[in-house]
Amino acid sequence: MFKSIIGESSRLAQQIEFILEIDKLKAVIRRNLILCGERNENSAEHSWSLGMMAVLLAEHSSEAIDIAHVVKMVLVHDLVEIDAGDTYCYDAAGNVDKEEREKKAADRIFGILPDDQRDELRGLWDEFEERCTAEAKFANSIDRLLPLMQNYQAHGASWKGHGVRVDQARERMAPVREGSIAIADAVDRMIDRALEEGYFRPAERISG
Amino acid sequence: MFKSIIGESSRLAQQIEFILEIDKLKAVIRRNLILCGERNENSAEHSWSLGMMAVLLAEHSSEAIDIAHVVKMVLVHDLVEIDAGDTYCYDAAGNVDKEEREKKAADRIFGILPDDQRDELRGLWDEFEERCTAEAKFANSIDRLLPLMQNYQAHGASWKGHGVRVDQARERMAPVREGSIAIADAVDRMIDRALEEGYFRPAERISG
Repeated sequence: MFKSIIGESSRLAQQIEFILEIDKLKAVIRRNLILCGERNENSAEHSWSLGMMAVLLAEHSSEAIDIAHVVKMVLVHDLVEIDAGDTYCYDAAGNVDKEEREKKAADRIFGILPDDQRDELRGLWDEFEERCTAEAKFANSIDRLLPLMQNYQAHGASWKGHGVRVDQARERMAPVREGSIAIADAVDRMIDRALEEGYFRPAERISG
Repeated sequence: MFKSIIGESSRLAQQIEFILEIDKLKAVIRRNLILCGERNENSAEHSWSLGMMAVLLAEHSSEAIDIAHVVKMVLVHDLVEIDAGDTYCYDAAGNVDKEEREKKAADRIFGILPDDQRDELRGLWDEFEERCTAEAKFANSIDRLLPLMQNYQAHGASWKGHGVRVDQARERMAPVREGSIAIADAVDRMIDRALEEGYFRPAERISG
C-alpha cells in the first residue's frame, strides 16, 4: 500500500514494507506468561526485553562484547517465527524440523529488504543460531535467563503444564555458562529453588 | 523474590529487579492497533518496533547519528509510562500534567538501578524528551512515523474515533522534519492520502 504513496522503487518504500511485515511478530505467542498479567507473552515484546537486558547485563559477559551488536542481534533473533512459529524448547517433536522451517522463513522475510540490509540482518540471525561469537553466546545466555525468571515468578506454571523435569531444565540452561559465569551461577540457584518449590519434576533415574 | 536467591546486595540482583519491574510496560496499552490483529498495541512491543526502525532507517537521518545510541534511546523512551500511562498525543487535557507525572515516574523507575545505570538510562530518557541532539531528533521522527503507518493501515480507526483534524496531524508530525527530510516527505504524502481517504476531519477555517 505504501509503495503507491512513497514510490515503487525507493529504498524507503522497501524498508517500510519490511517494517509492516515484521509487525506480525506481535501475534506470535510464546509459552510463558508476562509478569504483570494473565496473558502469554508475544515474541516482539520478548525481543524488547532482551534488548534492555543486553544493555543492562553486558558487564556480566565472560568475554568483552560489542553491546550494540548484541542489542541488534536480540531484536532480530526471533523474526523467523513470523512464518515458523515459536517452537517450545521442551517440545522434542516440534524441534525436529525447526531448523529447516526457520531457514525457509529467514529467506523470505529478510528477502523483503534491500540486499545490503538483508545480508546484515540475516547475518545477525545466523550468528545468534550458530552461537560461536562472544556476542552470540551472551545473547543466548539472556534469551534463556528471561523465561526462567518469568516462569519462576509465575510459580512454574508452564513447566508444570508440560511436566518439565529438572534435568531437562539444567540441560536447556547449560549454554548460559558459555556467555556469563555470573548469570549461570544465578541460574543454578534459581533452578535449585524452583525444584524445592515443586515447579519441576525430579530428575529421571536410570535403573540398572 | 530474586534478591533472596541471588544475594541482597549484588549488582546483578538489583539489575534483575529492574528487569522484572519494566516487564509492566507490556501492560501499558496504546491507542493504535497492531497491524496484524484486532487488538491495541502495548508500549513494550512498540518500543521493539522503534528499535528495528532505528537500525533500518538510520541512513535517512539528516545528520550523522550513532545508531546504537538511538536504539538504546527508543528502547528506554516509554518506560515512564509504567507509572504515568500512555498519554494520547491528541488529548489536550491529558497533556497538561504529562511532564510532571512522567518526571516523577522516571525518578522512581530508573532509581531501582545501580547509580551508574540509573544515570545512563535517565540521561537517554531526558535526551529523547528534550529533542536537541541529532540522535534524539531522529528517534522522535521514527516514534511519530510508526503510529502514522499503523493508523493508515487500520483505515484511520483511531483518528476517526477521536475526530482528529488534518491540521492537528500535520502539527503533530512537523518535528519529523527535524530528524529526516526523506521521512518527512513520505509522511506528508501519507497524510495527503489519508485525508483523501476520509481518515481525518478537514482543517478548521478561522472565520473573520
